Amino acid sequence: MSKLEISIPPLNQKAMDMARERLDSLAKPPGSLGVLEEVAVRLSGITGESFPAVENKTIIVMAGDHGIASEGVSRYPQHLTRLMVHTIISGGGAVNVLARHAGARVLVVDMGVMGRIDHPGILDCKVRDGTANMLLGPAMSEEEALRAVKAGRDVAWSVIDQGTNLIGTGEMGIGNTTASSAILSVFSGYPPEMVVGRGTGCDDEQLHSKQALVKKVVEMHRPDPRNPLEVLARVGGLEIAGLAGCILGAASRQVPVVIDGYISTAAALVASRFDDRVRDYILASHLSEETGHQIMLDMLGVKPMLHMSMRLGEGTGAALAFHLIDASTRIQQEMWKLDEVTNPGLMGEILND
Amino acid sequence: MSKLEISIPPLNQKAMDMARERLDSLAKPPGSLGVLEEVAVRLSGITGESFPAVENKTIIVMAGDHGIASEGVSRYPQHLTRLMVHTIISGGGAVNVLARHAGARVLVVDMGVMGRIDHPGILDCKVRDGTANMLLGPAMSEEEALRAVKAGRDVAWSVIDQGTNLIGTGEMGIGNTTASSAILSVFSGYPPEMVVGRGTGCDDEQLHSKQALVKKVVEMHRPDPRNPLEVLARVGGLEIAGLAGCILGAASRQVPVVIDGYISTAAALVASRFDDRVRDYILASHLSEETGHQIMLDMLGVKPMLHMSMRLGEGTGAALAFHLIDASTRIQQEMWKLDEVTNPGLMGEILND
Repeated sequence: MSKLEISIPPLNQKAMDMARERLDSLAKPPGSLGVLEEVAVRLSGITGESFPAVENKTIIVMAGDHGIASEGVSRYPQHLTRLMVHTIISGGGAVNVLARHAGARVLVVDMGVMGRIDHPGILDCKVRDGTANMLLGPAMSEEEALRAVKAGRDVAWSVIDQGTNLIGTGEMGIGNTTASSAILSVFSGYPPEMVVGRGTGCDDEQLHSKQALVKKVVEMHRPDPRNPLEVLARVGGLEIAGLAGCILGAASRQVPVVIDGYISTAAALVASRFDDRVRDYILASHLSEETGHQIMLDMLGVKPMLHMSMRLGEGTGAALAFHLIDASTRIQQEMWKLDEVTNPGLMGEILND
Repeated sequence: MSKLEISIPPLNQKAMDMARERLDSLAKPPGSLGVLEEVAVRLSGITGESFPAVENKTIIVMAGDHGIASEGVSRYPQHLTRLMVHTIISGGGAVNVLARHAGARVLVVDMGVMGRIDHPGILDCKVRDGTANMLLGPAMSEEEALRAVKAGRDVAWSVIDQGTNLIGTGEMGIGNTTASSAILSVFSGYPPEMVVGRGTGCDDEQLHSKQALVKKVVEMHRPDPRNPLEVLARVGGLEIAGLAGCILGAASRQVPVVIDGYISTAAALVASRFDDRVRDYILASHLSEETGHQIMLDMLGVKPMLHMSMRLGEGTGAALAFHLIDASTRIQQEMWKLDEVTNPGLMGEILND
């Protein structure tokens, strides 16, 4: 990881053992709170704390345009990226509503939207004005991909320096399910039919042409799946590269990352190809309606908590999952122990019953 | 439904159409928020309101003991029911933590715990001191089952009169997964091997004997699946009967009910056999780890939002889902419309692109 100048520490096994021990002492059958307990243990492993603090939450929404959008892969035109970026900066997007509901902040980052975003609320990390059409050549150069990953890493470090202790990922970019499908196809080896979905809602005809297009792109570029920078440069996206860096940056600072849906998970896959240890720091929020998302989650070895048939992106699933992460920490802090349920003498009798 | 003196109105189709229309006008692809949108539409259908209020939430935890517990179907002794009821009244249970987190109230109802619960926080609706051992005879009389269902209905009406506009169901009762499995077996016709699970965590040997026991109980009593009172009386439980009444009572007053896991869903199945229209008022919270829960949910035609491998009951899953219900109402209220994303002229151009 010399290129990225980060190192990811292992989970703190002692803190995890202590967290598990405490959970097993609470007034419930051991393990009966399922994923809530697994999350509590993992948060302890990530932070090294018995009662990890996750109250300062930021959803990082990275935006970028895609040259491939000119091939008609989306039902929406490319410049909707820019308009939706304005909407999210202004607080009117779905992710803003759900972030407010979760008590989280939303930070919008321009990784490569077409044209200048003239708004004080944007964090400008633009690497270039959208990717090139990957049907005609690489989406970007490897140098640009590396710059985008580093910028994402720096954004994570910056929000952590400002006090964030739980990061959610989100994105906006017309055409980015196409890039994500290409990335998944390269990493998984699965044919495009299995990994290309309808995105924001394309019809059968659009779906078939999107599948054919991803197949063509992947066959044309044949990036080496062991080289994540090459994959990003040839078939990736600027916001995907940024999110990969963001996830790696958070892990290097021992801050948990809640990933959102299809595009965020593609970024997590890319991050795991930079450093596999990053997977320990990732919590999956929801299973997207998008074809191929389950394959991605399986490859990462993570299990989504929410099954809501959502397919919007922006970080909406991550925002919803924050409540569940908070719940896991409150269970650990607030539940009575089994031996507090009644007087110790009586409980001894019951437990030995 | 003359026995229960309730009637369940149909959903308000006009309110649902208006809710759907508004959702489709928001700044997102139609349907892309999946279940969040479905919930918003359903809440409008239930309440008749464009912006339904669900801020006054109560989790009704019904408790009862089971004579079958003496057969060793649980890893815990029967009198843990009573101790856990005390814990939940006192605020130390898992459901209390998650209800606080969701801004909900917890109401604990004694439907038939063994012995008197000496605490001002309990609502006393005790029908009898636990059910009889259903391996030896009916769990209770049909008259007792009817009294329990009516008591549950009255509890729902009472909390609704006090302002509750969203109800969650929960329960506590050592042995109640066994009764729920018997109920499911009767209604579904599936053999006990497919519907009996490990409950709070019994081992292989206990599981096999629990399966054999449910088989024996169902074959011995052969209740008529078309007669829910007979099913409750022969193989049910007092808290299950109470919850069935509670769900019916809520539906009759057009208040949505979030059901929890295996036992709550068994109660919902019973309720649906009293009046099938009750299903319109039910929102499923989570898919329990308990074998057979998916079968129950499929029979009800409801889809759980959370996949957390939980198996604790108490209303813990329902409490977690409250955040998601709130989220759906906030999306409907707070998101920008697509034509507000920018000036109407520009958006017209984009949408016709």
